[in-house]
Amino acid sequence: MRAELIAIGTELLLGEIVDTNSPFLARKLAEYGINLYYISTVGDNLQRGLQVLARALDRSDLIIITGGLGPTDDDLTREIVSVATGCELVEDEAVWQELIRWFERRYGGDFVIPIHNRKQALFPRGSKVLSNTAGTAPGFWLDVNDISIVALPGVPGELKTMFAKGVEPALQLACAGQRLVTRNLNFIGIGESRLEDMLADLFAEQSNPTLALYVRGGKVRIRLTARAGSRQAGLELIAPLENEITKRAGDYLYSKDDKTLGAIIGEQLIRHRLCVAVAESCTGGLISHTLTNVPGSSAYFQRAYIVYSNQAKQEDLGVPAHLFTQFGAVSQEVAQAMAEGVRRKARVDFGLAVTGIAGPGGGSPEKPVGLTYIALASSGDTIVERHLWQGSREEIKDRTALAALRLLWLKSRC
Amino acid sequence: MRAELIAIGTELLLGEIVDTNSPFLARKLAEYGINLYYISTVGDNLQRGLQVLARALDRSDLIIITGGLGPTDDDLTREIVSVATGCELVEDEAVWQELIRWFERRYGGDFVIPIHNRKQALFPRGSKVLSNTAGTAPGFWLDVNDISIVALPGVPGELKTMFAKGVEPALQLACAGQRLVTRNLNFIGIGESRLEDMLADLFAEQSNPTLALYVRGGKVRIRLTARAGSRQAGLELIAPLENEITKRAGDYLYSKDDKTLGAIIGEQLIRHRLCVAVAESCTGGLISHTLTNVPGSSAYFQRAYIVYSNQAKQEDLGVPAHLFTQFGAVSQEVAQAMAEGVRRKARVDFGLAVTGIAGPGGGSPEKPVGLTYIALASSGDTIVERHLWQGSREEIKDRTALAALRLLWLKSRC
Repeated sequence: MRAELIAIGTELLLGEIVDTNSPFLARKLAEYGINLYYISTVGDNLQRGLQVLARALDRSDLIIITGGLGPTDDDLTREIVSVATGCELVEDEAVWQELIRWFERRYGGDFVIPIHNRKQALFPRGSKVLSNTAGTAPGFWLDVNDISIVALPGVPGELKTMFAKGVEPALQLACAGQRLVTRNLNFIGIGESRLEDMLADLFAEQSNPTLALYVRGGKVRIRLTARAGSRQAGLELIAPLENEITKRAGDYLYSKDDKTLGAIIGEQLIRHRLCVAVAESCTGGLISHTLTNVPGSSAYFQRAYIVYSNQAKQEDLGVPAHLFTQFGAVSQEVAQAMAEGVRRKARVDFGLAVTGIAGPGGGSPEKPVGLTYIALASSGDTIVERHLWQGSREEIKDRTALAALRLLWLKSRC
Repeated sequence: MRAELIAIGTELLLGEIVDTNSPFLARKLAEYGINLYYISTVGDNLQRGLQVLARALDRSDLIIITGGLGPTDDDLTREIVSVATGCELVEDEAVWQELIRWFERRYGGDFVIPIHNRKQALFPRGSKVLSNTAGTAPGFWLDVNDISIVALPGVPGELKTMFAKGVEPALQLACAGQRLVTRNLNFIGIGESRLEDMLADLFAEQSNPTLALYVRGGKVRIRLTARAGSRQAGLELIAPLENEITKRAGDYLYSKDDKTLGAIIGEQLIRHRLCVAVAESCTGGLISHTLTNVPGSSAYFQRAYIVYSNQAKQEDLGVPAHLFTQFGAVSQEVAQAMAEGVRRKARVDFGLAVTGIAGPGGGSPEKPVGLTYIALASSGDTIVERHLWQGSREEIKDRTALAALRLLWLKSRC
């Protein structure tokens, strides 16, 4: 099967929005082993839309169109499909009644439904309507001459819901026997090239499953992809390779599939009945924000201190004043005192602290922008790490927070 | 002038990366008043790349190709342009020497330059080479039969630099007398439709400048766009409309162009020599993270308390214990006590506090998920706002943080 995507909307051609629908659909098609050869983007223009669709009808078996299903004169997807296929537009009475009910629910009985919205009940003859549970724009699926044309709304949330309900089951059926099953392994604390070296023979030998390596925001991901008749069969093909990678690089493997580092840390802390308190200087709240993004994090995270000034470090965490004069606020000694101070103050198992220079100002030859100390105090000892990051203020905050969370992950593991 | 973009790369068709180059170029073309009618995405495949380029040569005057300039066999942009235009590939000696020097600088004298990289010195005959200061892949500009073909690397940072140096000056020349000048006005605390109502006559009358309204993450932006001979002339066309909008909706207008809310708050606090301290419950550090993303924020932000548990609210902020039993942790009374407590503790001008239920658990019929109280204590009084947000845990955190920052913005304005 050869698929093609057409994204419709002048705002895409003005660069006002980034098209995330096409990458979403592309990933889905790849999962089902469907080849996607072209993505075309065109404005809200009948003539140019027709050109693009005519071309697609010549070369593809599955055409997914996104956008252009709204109620205004600019929304032309129905008209484009109707003209290109010769299937005239007819009103679907059930959809029209549903639209009326939608407006009544939303605006009450007195509201007169805008005449424009009537257009949203029109579909090329022969279409199957794809209902929109999240908005007013229904989509449709039209089969003509062995080609399937699917029209979905441009709003990403509406598109995803409609795709899952109205399109994905059909793709699953169509592609039985050749679906792709993927498994993601997420690593931290190891560089891309070092990980590649550790697994060089596996990369060289790959066929089914295949391996691919991605880097994003300081983390490395290996994606294992198997082609198989079912999800179960795919996972069985993946298992031996997954086990081998875990054996070799397990020290850096923090999660599988889409679990976040924060969620994994949370699970570990809950499992061992441990709590953490945080003292942040240069990260300014980012570590705590990341930890509290996890639902239920109040079970192991009760408080944190953001201590930008030396005075706050002294008053809130009991860091001795002489450490600042002797070593400076960005030093191993202060990081250690912060971690131990917050652990004592909050009476918890782990005290996690960072102090550093996020820049762009505040650096010096001895203590340049990017210098950071990370400390983790626990019942046995206090570990302190020194890092020197490159990048913008926000990048330095990101990297520091990630390295601090990595330390907590490692230490709460066993 | 009719422009067209072609993005080349199989990873785009697998949805592994989102194409941000095309929106970037689209915005730039719009700025220069150049009409962009089509964006095509195609994989690393000679035949399909040729098809797409042949089509573009039929209908466009300016074709910008992104990606496919690397050294591997998969990188086919040079070949595609050469075949489609009949301009054979020839080696550019200066580029080849520069590549050798690049490898020497990077790997030292002993390094043998990979034979594959020699390909990066090949260009369709007649091309002007666009040098790449950020990587090894040079681009090129080729004029054939009144059509300009521009090839740029796919790595966004390299593309932007090359575009600014090698392409933008030519567009500026070509489009003198018709460039677009834009000005963005950023609003907070007002809905899209209410703002549209306040400015309905201005929207109805628009011609030059035009107005467009965008909504993103709880903020509303109005973009004013004028077509004029120079930036100065454009801004003069925009000024009367900008003033009228400011007169009517100035209470919600927090910044112009790309300044963030955090940066604007920082400027206000510095101007009035004021400091803020923050007490966060449900936002878990996000407010402090946002404030400390601004360089120099240590001038007005010295500390914050993240107080998830009632015990932390009592110990760190002095919230009286009876408020929890009488009103509950998520209440007007506790929010007020937190704001006043953090202001007192940190001895600053503003104490900003939030308490709420971010969910998904922890809600009840009386206090549902999304219920949030925001308080701002200052020398004169303490303001408390109640909100009931919809959305996921992260969305509720986002909206609460934004509303809290809005309160601080309003109060530190005058």
